[in-house]
Amino acid sequence: MINTLVLDRATKIFTNVSDPNLISDHCARPDGILWVDVADPTSSDFDDLAREFGFHPLSIEDCRHQHQRPKVEEYEGYYFIVLYEAEMRPGLQLELRELALFLGPNYLVTVHSQPIRNIEKARILWRHWADLAERRTGLPAYLLLDAIVDDYMPLLDDFSDRLDETEARIFESFQPEAIHDIFIIKKQLIFLRRAVVPLREVFNTLLRREQPVFSRETLVYFQDVYDHLIRVADSIDSMREIAASTMDAYLSVSGNRMNFVMKRLTSIATILMSVTLIAGIYGMNFNFMPELRWRYGYIGALASMLVVGLALYFYFRKIKWL
Amino acid sequence: MINTLVLDRATKIFTNVSDPNLISDHCARPDGILWVDVADPTSSDFDDLAREFGFHPLSIEDCRHQHQRPKVEEYEGYYFIVLYEAEMRPGLQLELRELALFLGPNYLVTVHSQPIRNIEKARILWRHWADLAERRTGLPAYLLLDAIVDDYMPLLDDFSDRLDETEARIFESFQPEAIHDIFIIKKQLIFLRRAVVPLREVFNTLLRREQPVFSRETLVYFQDVYDHLIRVADSIDSMREIAASTMDAYLSVSGNRMNFVMKRLTSIATILMSVTLIAGIYGMNFNFMPELRWRYGYIGALASMLVVGLALYFYFRKIKWL
Amino acid sequence: MINTLVLDRATKIFTNVSDPNLISDHCARPDGILWVDVADPTSSDFDDLAREFGFHPLSIEDCRHQHQRPKVEEYEGYYFIVLYEAEMRPGLQLELRELALFLGPNYLVTVHSQPIRNIEKARILWRHWADLAERRTGLPAYLLLDAIVDDYMPLLDDFSDRLDETEARIFESFQPEAIHDIFIIKKQLIFLRRAVVPLREVFNTLLRREQPVFSRETLVYFQDVYDHLIRVADSIDSMREIAASTMDAYLSVSGNRMNFVMKRLTSIATILMSVTLIAGIYGMNFNFMPELRWRYGYIGALASMLVVGLALYFYFRKIKWL
Amino acid sequence: MINTLVLDRATKIFTNVSDPNLISDHCARPDGILWVDVADPTSSDFDDLAREFGFHPLSIEDCRHQHQRPKVEEYEGYYFIVLYEAEMRPGLQLELRELALFLGPNYLVTVHSQPIRNIEKARILWRHWADLAERRTGLPAYLLLDAIVDDYMPLLDDFSDRLDETEARIFESFQPEAIHDIFIIKKQLIFLRRAVVPLREVFNTLLRREQPVFSRETLVYFQDVYDHLIRVADSIDSMREIAASTMDAYLSVSGNRMNFVMKRLTSIATILMSVTLIAGIYGMNFNFMPELRWRYGYIGALASMLVVGLALYFYFRKIKWL
Amino acid sequence: MINTLVLDRATKIFTNVSDPNLISDHCARPDGILWVDVADPTSSDFDDLAREFGFHPLSIEDCRHQHQRPKVEEYEGYYFIVLYEAEMRPGLQLELRELALFLGPNYLVTVHSQPIRNIEKARILWRHWADLAERRTGLPAYLLLDAIVDDYMPLLDDFSDRLDETEARIFESFQPEAIHDIFIIKKQLIFLRRAVVPLREVFNTLLRREQPVFSRETLVYFQDVYDHLIRVADSIDSMREIAASTMDAYLSVSGNRMNFVMKRLTSIATILMSVTLIAGIYGMNFNFMPELRWRYGYIGALASMLVVGLALYFYFRKIKWL
Repeated sequence: MINTLVLDRATKIFTNVSDPNLISDHCARPDGILWVDVADPTSSDFDDLAREFGFHPLSIEDCRHQHQRPKVEEYEGYYFIVLYEAEMRPGLQLELRELALFLGPNYLVTVHSQPIRNIEKARILWRHWADLAERRTGLPAYLLLDAIVDDYMPLLDDFSDRLDETEARIFESFQPEAIHDIFIIKKQLIFLRRAVVPLREVFNTLLRREQPVFSRETLVYFQDVYDHLIRVADSIDSMREIAASTMDAYLSVSGNRMNFVMKRLTSIATILMSVTLIAGIYGMNFNFMPELRWRYGYIGALASMLVVGLALYFYFRKIKWL
Repeated sequence: MINTLVLDRATKIFTNVSDPNLISDHCARPDGILWVDVADPTSSDFDDLAREFGFHPLSIEDCRHQHQRPKVEEYEGYYFIVLYEAEMRPGLQLELRELALFLGPNYLVTVHSQPIRNIEKARILWRHWADLAERRTGLPAYLLLDAIVDDYMPLLDDFSDRLDETEARIFESFQPEAIHDIFIIKKQLIFLRRAVVPLREVFNTLLRREQPVFSRETLVYFQDVYDHLIRVADSIDSMREIAASTMDAYLSVSGNRMNFVMKRLTSIATILMSVTLIAGIYGMNFNFMPELRWRYGYIGALASMLVVGLALYFYFRKIKWL
Repeated sequence: MINTLVLDRATKIFTNVSDPNLISDHCARPDGILWVDVADPTSSDFDDLAREFGFHPLSIEDCRHQHQRPKVEEYEGYYFIVLYEAEMRPGLQLELRELALFLGPNYLVTVHSQPIRNIEKARILWRHWADLAERRTGLPAYLLLDAIVDDYMPLLDDFSDRLDETEARIFESFQPEAIHDIFIIKKQLIFLRRAVVPLREVFNTLLRREQPVFSRETLVYFQDVYDHLIRVADSIDSMREIAASTMDAYLSVSGNRMNFVMKRLTSIATILMSVTLIAGIYGMNFNFMPELRWRYGYIGALASMLVVGLALYFYFRKIKWL
Repeated sequence: MINTLVLDRATKIFTNVSDPNLISDHCARPDGILWVDVADPTSSDFDDLAREFGFHPLSIEDCRHQHQRPKVEEYEGYYFIVLYEAEMRPGLQLELRELALFLGPNYLVTVHSQPIRNIEKARILWRHWADLAERRTGLPAYLLLDAIVDDYMPLLDDFSDRLDETEARIFESFQPEAIHDIFIIKKQLIFLRRAVVPLREVFNTLLRREQPVFSRETLVYFQDVYDHLIRVADSIDSMREIAASTMDAYLSVSGNRMNFVMKRLTSIATILMSVTLIAGIYGMNFNFMPELRWRYGYIGALASMLVVGLALYFYFRKIKWL
Repeated sequence: MINTLVLDRATKIFTNVSDPNLISDHCARPDGILWVDVADPTSSDFDDLAREFGFHPLSIEDCRHQHQRPKVEEYEGYYFIVLYEAEMRPGLQLELRELALFLGPNYLVTVHSQPIRNIEKARILWRHWADLAERRTGLPAYLLLDAIVDDYMPLLDDFSDRLDETEARIFESFQPEAIHDIFIIKKQLIFLRRAVVPLREVFNTLLRREQPVFSRETLVYFQDVYDHLIRVADSIDSMREIAASTMDAYLSVSGNRMNFVMKRLTSIATILMSVTLIAGIYGMNFNFMPELRWRYGYIGALASMLVVGLALYFYFRKIKWL
């Protein structure tokens, strides 16, 4: 499904081009800026792209096979960029959706097999900005990348909240299942990191290289996206460290619980065995056991059991074992 | 709330400018040094700044949205700097307050939505130094940055004290709750580190770059702040290592406590069960149990219980299990 | 066993050369591309190679002694490359098979003592591509390296599946033997990493160096293999982190199980000892124990045992200790 | 307390200069080499230094405030160096004493508030060397730095011995307090590292920079001190790794001890409870219990207790649980 | 003990020079290559070296004091190299023997206080090669360094075997003492690493620097030694990771054993206490206990004990607690 939007920079008019064969004509006009979005591409879509823009077979291949790592590659006359849109799905599942970009002097081609919600958002913003004053060629790419990178931020707040909540579950009321949550958070952070950190290099490459594609004024905007990205990467690393600390703390708190249970076991066993010992003594069958004949012997035995039991109980209370 | 202080370098006179529209006039005069402090900025304050100084929209945006990472960005004719003032609040809560700086050839603009106590302190110092001899343009920025970085030092002493205290709580009288404190210290160090370490790059950039803004003599002072910053970053890393070691030690000491409780349980169970066994033996109902008819059988049984109990007790004392 | 395949670029005809002494003749012809495959080489095979191609004694030595680390070395007129083909054998054993490449302007020599399955695969592809249009000199090397690197990918999916499965074995039904599996996965990842990561440098060297061997168009293809390699290395590192996290989680879950067993022991001991205490009390031999003469004393005692036992049982159920 | 030693290179005569106001005169003479040592400096001492040598206010400030990190700073015409002398005090307390150096073309100024024992040592060596042949300007600085760095070596041997001893305390006879020692060693290594590692950069700076202060021949000597420093830093890192391993091993050995105690508890409880069960059986009050009337019933019961007890005892011995 | 071997490159004749005073004469001849081996050097040996070759006092000092780190230093006209020969002594003790090399245009001086077995080996090889064709000046140095580095390889195989064996001891039959072995392996790897890794830089320096000493053809050989060294360093790092993983696994398996013991304790205590409870019940002294008068009461009680005991036993078998 190829969906092409063309901006005529002179007239500020946006046009939808339905026939893929006309793309290259629009692209050739000096005043046109194109954004070609290819959703869920078929084999013939790839052929169209290759023919209309003359993309290198390898970049087409990478699009086709998916599961690339975030990267930027410079081909003759265009950049090929792969990155991931991230979203936290219900049930706390992290979804990473792959998006490939071909970024030329006056066009942007986006290819993705899953729906990318930021594309719609960026297109609305593009229409809005272009109506005002800004009609630079790099604008659609900036708006899309900015939207995707900004989407990482709430994810991290979410991770931060979940870590805080897990911390409470460990330290306030020890819940053994918390360990599974920490494990899942750690794993998701590893996956998110793999999607974000190479992206940092992507921007670094875009910003450092001798730039044939964008003007210096546009680069300032990419620099801004890059800064956000570094903040995201920093946050991921902090989260990872906190998650690791939480796991360590879990072990310690779990050890404390064990200590507590052991102390309780020791206390209870001591009390019950001591009292049972008294009963055992008066269960002996000696002929000459004066207490057995006393009037209040039985009451006395029960009382002494109670006294010993309570004395031990309060002792263990005092040393905080019970 | 815009609060502007102007120093006339020729006459050494400080003036307060209340009308934001006059800022650019003062700025244009070759002899004036301005410090514009914008506390809790409103939208119109941002418009004033953009109009009077011609700041780039992106730096204005970063101010507006807050939660930037510490950074320095070079725009045409000025630096945009973000950093954090740190303070340990009662209840051992670490507070990081964001501060944005626009640093131009003869002006300093500070923007913050929370009160920054070092601003007042730096202004007093500025008046003092300017009265004496030093009337360089970079002076207010130096004084402010120096004050903020110097504020990190007592924080670290505080962390160091808390770690020492926690160490004592673990090794001298094992307190299980100590683990929560270590965890909080580790977390605070992670956050503080995130505020301080990128600042190191900030200064590095300021000091290495071809300098259009400050003279070499002023740079020596920034170098000094940079050195303090490195010391702070070093200390944070040491603290983090000590905190990690303390957590490891906690686990070990906690394991020792467990060992101790287990040994005690084993000792007590052994003693009580052995003594109970004797009572059990003389509770048997055999017809021919000569001891049962002995005159001192009962006393003898009690005595043998006592002897066995004490013997085991002293044995376990000796091997340090009790 | 030397097996030589020659492509005549002009006529597109592939020839098998059986006599090793003719290799250098074919190599000298400007239009020939050679792929010499030496399987399970004998000493005389090495002599043939040295004589026909003039390889440096050191690279021949490295071939002969095996167990080299992945590397690329530049000799006069050719590259000497060592890398490993990886395969997961039944019984989850990782097999790494060494392969040495001599890569010259118009020849590729592959030397290996174990069968390398990708050689056959790459040769078939070479015939196929050469029939079409592509008859570049670097093609056989690209096809072989690409096939070998692509083989790493399913391995990693395999590791990922095994880690997921182990995670389930730990968190869903705690299986103590899982630890051995994690250990083996970690170890295999260490070995795989050692085979893959230096390869990254190999490609980096091939791509960065002033290239006397391949044209720029061919390099784009090597860049693609390099990208895949980086993705593999990234994945290995992620897997390693997940494996480490899983081991940590194992410890925690194992601690939880221990806690559970301890609580159960405490509960059972408490219940049985309490009930036994009642029996012990009525086993005492005091003359004046009114209950002993009651009609329903025995039933009452049994009932009180039951009541105490059940009360404790439900109490421990409630606090989740049983 | 300012103590100045002047060497006249022509006459090889050493002079003590008592009046601080004369320092600059001596310094101005081409043939004089000065070593000004300022111990426990007062405010007026700092004024003297600033006036006589024209030191930058910032370096004076750093001296005054102490607690700098090891560093080298280049000012106009001199280097400002901060480093630490290390000593292991009785009671195994690591003491780090701060020392500031001003290193000019023909003078060395040392400032310290605690006594630095290597100053005296280096002065004696200076007199000795100067008597012989070597009268270079950098000599006193070399001798002092060399003496301080050489002092780190025995410290590390000491750490190594203490780690070996702790290892023995863990593996040979498990002593739970060993954990505190490892913790203290780790902490001291962190502090020592902080004093030594930045020093490495100090020397690196001194050696790499375009050198206005020392001749190439003198630099060879500084290179030698630098090598020693790297060896010290390497050793510290090795010690840290060993200390970390020791802590891990401690945990494992501690776990083994726990296992041992648990096995013992299980064994003892099994033996005593089994024997008690026999006593319990013959304590039952059934009318028809033939054994009770046997002549040797009692002896038989005791014997069976003994047999069961010993059988279990030897069984547990055999499986190494007792 | 100075032992000098001279090769006359023209005549291929080797000569032993016994008088140290003649060394410099041989060295001055354009066709001579010298290898001076100084074993267990005395003070006068050092004086001879300094006089005959004009070595810098610092390099002589380093030889004299021993315990240098592996390094290469460039002095005027020669390299000074320190490295270590490694050997695994009986009793699994790692021995590192220091060796200092002075490497000049046509001489090699080796100094060592412990016997270095590879010197003899390298000399034999030198004679052999020189007899054939190779009479380059760098040859003796290459042969010696190659022999020493090749000696590291079997050490690593040894470590690998020991780690595999320890793994078996942990996972197959848990042996608590295995922890000591892992600890010793980790420690030895730390020491070996310290001897090998700086050596990597040594070779790097030799290979990268503008080379006044060796020709390009000789460098290829040093490159080969460098490659082996990198493989050794890689292997050490892999071993270290495996050793760390093994230690972690040890902890986990040890925890499993504890779990097993705890479960067994719980099972045994439950069975014995339950059975004892039955005995306790029939040991009560109530007047009206009908079972006591039953003909088969006793047998019935014993039978019920057996039934309860076996039922619990098989239950615990089923849930794998026994």
